[in-house]
Amino acid sequence: LRWLKDNLMSVFSFNKLLIFGVGLIGGSLALALRHQGATGKIIGIGRTQTSLDLARELGVIDQAIVDGDDPSHPEHGGAALAEALSDADLIVLATPVVRIEGLLQRIAPYLSPSAVVTDVGSTKTNVLAAAQRALGDRSIQFVPGHPIAGREFSGVQAALADLFMGCKVVLCPAPELVNDAVGEVQAEVRAGVKPTERIAQMWRAVGATIHWMSAARHDQVFAAVSHLPHVLSFALVEQVLRSDDPALRFAFAGGGFRDFTRIAASNPEMWRDICLANREALLAEIDAYDSVLKQLRSALEASEGKALEAVFERARQARMSLANK
Amino acid sequence: LRWLKDNLMSVFSFNKLLIFGVGLIGGSLALALRHQGATGKIIGIGRTQTSLDLARELGVIDQAIVDGDDPSHPEHGGAALAEALSDADLIVLATPVVRIEGLLQRIAPYLSPSAVVTDVGSTKTNVLAAAQRALGDRSIQFVPGHPIAGREFSGVQAALADLFMGCKVVLCPAPELVNDAVGEVQAEVRAGVKPTERIAQMWRAVGATIHWMSAARHDQVFAAVSHLPHVLSFALVEQVLRSDDPALRFAFAGGGFRDFTRIAASNPEMWRDICLANREALLAEIDAYDSVLKQLRSALEASEGKALEAVFERARQARMSLANK
Repeated sequence: LRWLKDNLMSVFSFNKLLIFGVGLIGGSLALALRHQGATGKIIGIGRTQTSLDLARELGVIDQAIVDGDDPSHPEHGGAALAEALSDADLIVLATPVVRIEGLLQRIAPYLSPSAVVTDVGSTKTNVLAAAQRALGDRSIQFVPGHPIAGREFSGVQAALADLFMGCKVVLCPAPELVNDAVGEVQAEVRAGVKPTERIAQMWRAVGATIHWMSAARHDQVFAAVSHLPHVLSFALVEQVLRSDDPALRFAFAGGGFRDFTRIAASNPEMWRDICLANREALLAEIDAYDSVLKQLRSALEASEGKALEAVFERARQARMSLANK
Repeated sequence: LRWLKDNLMSVFSFNKLLIFGVGLIGGSLALALRHQGATGKIIGIGRTQTSLDLARELGVIDQAIVDGDDPSHPEHGGAALAEALSDADLIVLATPVVRIEGLLQRIAPYLSPSAVVTDVGSTKTNVLAAAQRALGDRSIQFVPGHPIAGREFSGVQAALADLFMGCKVVLCPAPELVNDAVGEVQAEVRAGVKPTERIAQMWRAVGATIHWMSAARHDQVFAAVSHLPHVLSFALVEQVLRSDDPALRFAFAGGGFRDFTRIAASNPEMWRDICLANREALLAEIDAYDSVLKQLRSALEASEGKALEAVFERARQARMSLANK
């Protein structure tokens, strides 16, 4: 019976979870998995003692390991981390995307062959490439992910056990495993570990729905519906600032301007990193946008009211059906 | 005493108000002026009997005159309109901007020399020019206005007596009367009628604050903070529609995309007219925007993270102080 239970459990849950970066997303995932009884021990790895202490006080993690990026850091690559990794079966990288490759290089030597690894970053092509460089043959154990979830607040104190309820998670395994035309994944044939299945189970356990996509497709879609709008919104505020009367203009900025520029209040460092990480796809979307804008400009210059109205009408109908979903 | 009361009243209120176009804005103004005891009889002029009947039922107007644009319309230029105009001391044009010039031409012959006229359109250079053409020497009786107010709903059934409480109203008298550097107006010297003063009183009576601006400055400011964002928002939805996977993209459109494109659900016909009416200023703003976007694109292409972050940071700070106002 014990044997049966262990083996059934191993399909649906994890014995030991390591989370690198215990902030809003990492912390919420830890809370949610524990709440669902889907994980055993949870170890949080972070760069500062203070935030890890808070995570422990809040019951988000069971154990904390301080681990600096700096090789001269006393805990860097320490024995505690190596030991924690040796029998961890789920490793979640919830750090900024720029840190992922370095972390993967460092955990590679200690990674159990039955462990699965995922991340939660907003760009995927670069993360997949980083995993292939850092893990080589074992990169199959890594399934890049992107939960479409967030709050206005950040940090572990903002973590919620139900943050992922009903939210979408995009998983982007190696391109040969995914079929973009139908949005389906092909299970890995390697015996034993089935990382895509395990990571999908993890997200389903916390209430999310899985969407399979190649990393390239993911990055194109998010360049279009998230990264480009951020750039456009930052650009509009910048334009007002560069005008000869920014105070007057802001004084007459109504609800439309406020809605449009709400995302310009986003974290500049994070958005710099996302833009750089998704540079190719974002450049393509900026160019596509520029050509739509140029066409509207030409229609306006020629006072072609019908052409303008046709675009506005199409856009309005599409935007309204979006609102009804 | 009676003489004193009449003369005091004439400074602070109106004996007879004519409103052309009894919709959200025209209807709200009628309700608000009546609520403040600032007007005597209110006559609503519209193109359809049905909406005027509704306005009367709702207590928005006292009398209705159906008046078609079409010269063959039985009521066109009818005796009822001429009579109503002869002793009206306040005339508000709350129709679409494109109809203003035609209306001014038609009311000109019947306009009392002591009457003041205003409009509520979103563009002002074209309205001022229309008034100068239609009224000639008497164009001083017309003070173009733009109340920055609105609701999601339209029509007289959406009218509210407190719609203008605390809202801003921009008044754009002839350029020689206004000083853009200090935002002040110079009172007309012509004896008797002081249209700028009267129209300002009207708006203050309903709780609005007055901002004086030349029509050119007004159109530039609103091109920047309202018309341009609408065009940019329509353009982004259009770009998604033109992509090879609009359904997939819309499926992953999160809160940022929704905020950014909320104004793309605006009325296409109205926005076509606004764009055409404010063509010059809007073209200039599109070009200014295009150059900001090009700079961001170059920084991204060259992976100049610092340059991107600097713009994002400036924008974020400006957007956040806007939120705190």
